[in-house]
Amino acid sequence: MEESTHVVKHILLAKFKDEIPQQRIEQLIRGYAALVPLVPSMKGFHWGRDVSIENLHRGFTHVFESTFESTEGIAEYVSHPAHVEFANEFLPTLEKFVVVDYKPATVNL
Amino acid sequence: MEESTHVVKHILLAKFKDEIPQQRIEQLIRGYAALVPLVPSMKGFHWGRDVSIENLHRGFTHVFESTFESTEGIAEYVSHPAHVEFANEFLPTLEKFVVVDYKPATVNL
Repeated sequence: MEESTHVVKHILLAKFKDEIPQQRIEQLIRGYAALVPLVPSMKGFHWGRDVSIENLHRGFTHVFESTFESTEGIAEYVSHPAHVEFANEFLPTLEKFVVVDYKPATVNL
Repeated sequence: MEESTHVVKHILLAKFKDEIPQQRIEQLIRGYAALVPLVPSMKGFHWGRDVSIENLHRGFTHVFESTFESTEGIAEYVSHPAHVEFANEFLPTLEKFVVVDYKPATVNL
């Protein structure tokens, strides 16, 4: 049924607390991106604000998508000191968040 | 700060109801993928099971990621009869889901 690509995507949906200023949010997003050159297993980083129109976002306002070559690479990232330091700064600014990892697969119809 | 790519990602995180059999889930995933050749604005489809280890998935078990060239393309998709028909079949099988759209941007460090 499926054909997997050789990457694992790490997706974080987040809603920042209302009191976090826009400038601080931008600083945090730069801090997230700055993990790529620090964490060898982290191969890429993209982010975006939610622009959906269906009103099914459940309050989430930001998407953060990072790319790894394996689930082991994500485990290395999670325990990497640079990530731990960033997470300790970042997570308290969030009202809510959800994290999923998946191996993007296509479907052979 | 940022550089946007020229795509919009449509991300659906889902948890199927416990009573939905695996075979039915696979059939629905094939049905989701089968929208690509039916909906002109839908440029790609990937999916995967959650394989995260941080236990921050909030119960979501599947990720569905489709690609569009614009938010207008997503609006066309949302109202396309093939999507409407599929959604009417798919959504009732879900215990919970969240949908976000975003334009993946990189950060110039």
